[in-house]
Amino acid sequence: MEEVIKKAADVTEKVCEWQPPEKLKALLDLELKDTGENHQKLLQFCRDVIKFSVKTNHPRFFNQLYAGIDYYSLAARFITEALNPSVYTYEVSPVFLLVEDAVLKKMIEFIGWEEGDGIFNPGGSVSNMYAMNLARYKYCPDIKEQGLSGMPRLVVLTSDECHYSVKKAASFLGIGTQNVYFIKSDERGKMIPEELEKQVLRARKEGSAPFFVSATAGTTVLGAFDPLDEIADICERYGLWLHVDASWGGSALLSRKHCRLLHGIHRANSVAWNPHKMLMAGIQCCALLVKDSSGLLKRCYSANASYLFQQDKFYDVSYDTGDKSIQCSRRADAFKFWMTWKALGTTGLEERVNRALALARYLVDEIKKREGFQLLLEPEYANICFWYIPPSLRNMEEGHEYWEKLHHVAPAIKERMMKKGSIMLGYQPHRGKVNFFRQVIISPKAQLIVMNVPNGLGRI
Amino acid sequence: MEEVIKKAADVTEKVCEWQPPEKLKALLDLELKDTGENHQKLLQFCRDVIKFSVKTNHPRFFNQLYAGIDYYSLAARFITEALNPSVYTYEVSPVFLLVEDAVLKKMIEFIGWEEGDGIFNPGGSVSNMYAMNLARYKYCPDIKEQGLSGMPRLVVLTSDECHYSVKKAASFLGIGTQNVYFIKSDERGKMIPEELEKQVLRARKEGSAPFFVSATAGTTVLGAFDPLDEIADICERYGLWLHVDASWGGSALLSRKHCRLLHGIHRANSVAWNPHKMLMAGIQCCALLVKDSSGLLKRCYSANASYLFQQDKFYDVSYDTGDKSIQCSRRADAFKFWMTWKALGTTGLEERVNRALALARYLVDEIKKREGFQLLLEPEYANICFWYIPPSLRNMEEGHEYWEKLHHVAPAIKERMMKKGSIMLGYQPHRGKVNFFRQVIISPKAQLIVMNVPNGLGRI
Repeated sequence: MEEVIKKAADVTEKVCEWQPPEKLKALLDLELKDTGENHQKLLQFCRDVIKFSVKTNHPRFFNQLYAGIDYYSLAARFITEALNPSVYTYEVSPVFLLVEDAVLKKMIEFIGWEEGDGIFNPGGSVSNMYAMNLARYKYCPDIKEQGLSGMPRLVVLTSDECHYSVKKAASFLGIGTQNVYFIKSDERGKMIPEELEKQVLRARKEGSAPFFVSATAGTTVLGAFDPLDEIADICERYGLWLHVDASWGGSALLSRKHCRLLHGIHRANSVAWNPHKMLMAGIQCCALLVKDSSGLLKRCYSANASYLFQQDKFYDVSYDTGDKSIQCSRRADAFKFWMTWKALGTTGLEERVNRALALARYLVDEIKKREGFQLLLEPEYANICFWYIPPSLRNMEEGHEYWEKLHHVAPAIKERMMKKGSIMLGYQPHRGKVNFFRQVIISPKAQLIVMNVPNGLGRI
Repeated sequence: MEEVIKKAADVTEKVCEWQPPEKLKALLDLELKDTGENHQKLLQFCRDVIKFSVKTNHPRFFNQLYAGIDYYSLAARFITEALNPSVYTYEVSPVFLLVEDAVLKKMIEFIGWEEGDGIFNPGGSVSNMYAMNLARYKYCPDIKEQGLSGMPRLVVLTSDECHYSVKKAASFLGIGTQNVYFIKSDERGKMIPEELEKQVLRARKEGSAPFFVSATAGTTVLGAFDPLDEIADICERYGLWLHVDASWGGSALLSRKHCRLLHGIHRANSVAWNPHKMLMAGIQCCALLVKDSSGLLKRCYSANASYLFQQDKFYDVSYDTGDKSIQCSRRADAFKFWMTWKALGTTGLEERVNRALALARYLVDEIKKREGFQLLLEPEYANICFWYIPPSLRNMEEGHEYWEKLHHVAPAIKERMMKKGSIMLGYQPHRGKVNFFRQVIISPKAQLIVMNVPNGLGRI
């Protein structure tokens, strides 16, 4: 714990101890044998695992949309690991089912619904799948029993900036990736409502059945928010289920300053929201919230297994919520978030959001001031996308050769930073733009320190 | 930790501190407020959560197909919670991806395949879904893009004793629950191969497309093992994907004495196996193993998200296995099992299986000896299904009234045991049989102690 919690958060330590796969394999003694190892050896394994793992709690870990550690959540997670519950029935998980219910209700309140339903899932991708299936069930309940064969072609609509899980969901659910119509987004990455309407009409004209719009509140790369109110208008007009993938952006709902980013979210039929990202609840903590409170979620998902969901129990079996899930055993993911919320209060969570966005603002200002750094666009949220322009390119014309060369800069810098263990930062090409960095500052451990990057690449 | 680990395992303590839902809600102060609570209050919450949670580590917890705690796994789980990894790319989870690979390889070895592929999932239900989708992709790769509309009706075959997740999967994947053909099983709960063949022919005659057989190795209630070799013959004959849901029974593969239960499993195309059940790896630890080693899993599931799975990284990106998954963020569930395996060796895991089955045998013998206890059937595995016959019924004729009365006995005893906190034991009606108890003894803490049950109900 000393190694993994305290030392990992020390900025003078490495964020990762890079080893290439083959070498790390050799270092780790991974092989599973007939006989067990002694405790000394096991402790050494633990030390090695910690040593060579990435310290997501390190102040310089900016590689994903999560970072840092919340000690209240961590305490809760130790408790659940030790209790080892599975959340399907009240008799086995009385506390965790009630806690889940309390957290869902509070999240529903922040979405702005008077009532609602929901469930915690192993990931935002899974929440998006749930929503798509739920919308399909609402559109045509017979599909649950009869399947899609012989049905008209279903069409899903989402922006070209959506998370890849929408495509995975369409494939998994038997809808097919070709039947995901990707709506053009504007230069900031926001879905263009007029384009959505066009595609809905196109789908109808083709004789297919558009039924589900997945808007995004906080896109993965650019951090863009689709205009929910205008999209909701279109969904209402054409009778489409509006899902909002707010896996990343949902946490802004807790900030009075920034909740306007999600204006109109109360009009959605379902929302995916991952407190494990900006709110640091720990991997994984992901809720699907559903506006319907008539039991749609349960009707859609239930299989009524009689060995688990007996109806002749001596307590109110409406508390046995496991049949709302595609899972059987299910982790108590709501509890860690509940503990953090209890400890910090809504205002503490709000500060966490405000701080992340203030740090994003600060980073933007610094990037603008410094030679050799160039913003892709003014950020709407916490995703700061930028290029580092090495001195050799600074006076070059922005033609084919320039972009070709710049494309190789981010991977090269990333390699150096990883091997040095100095910083972890994601990069990607995107929408015809060559490789650029995307930085998100979430961890409370992240502080403003000027760091020298070697070989004249400037300072980060 | 004192409360949740040591005290919870003390047989003189209660297995649960029963409170009805509304009362527990009032006791727990679940409400999330604007301001945070002080540490004293937070500690009290922790104590209450532990107090009112079911002690799945208690020697008298027999309610599910898992129980007990493995301290090596627990140590590993504390480490992963503190490191907070997400297992998608080698750069973020170098150690945990290699560990997962090592564990999968070893599990594949025990299945008896020379090569293979696999992934850890949040539950056996999800593994079964993966397998069904994978089989569908293999059957017709175009479905990934084009979906099921306009396709012939797909048919899934499984026994009437299968886990309910097969039905949930068919619904979720757009195949439809009506297109799951439930094959009759014999009086011990084992799929009848001749019936399978009949249903395959029926499906073909109907012009539909049978493509997937889900056999079960260790059914949920009776613990029955389908005859895999004979089923594999039929699958080969008709070109069907053979999946084995060995979520519960897979662990027997580690026992030289009991692995014959799964004879023929090496002929399967995929296997679901949950080490979190009999091997006590902790909720959740569930692998889907796939015989194909040509990359089918990745081709079926990949969406090639360029922000995460960049192809111009400086290391061998074949180690970035996250695109095999329907999840984006994913927990490092293989590590805890790896740690247990390292600590105990294969022989230690084998002993765990042998012990559970020896205790099952002992329980059967005791049930046979004691008045008022009646076995449903001779168990094949660790599931001991029995009725307790109260004195008032012992001399009654086994007619309608007898069964009607007996049906109410298990729930009534369960209620008393729960309220007393003495023991937790599952019951269910099944295949026309009235409510009976199902007991599975996994926990190493379970020892042979004679316990007096009040009110003349006998001894358990």
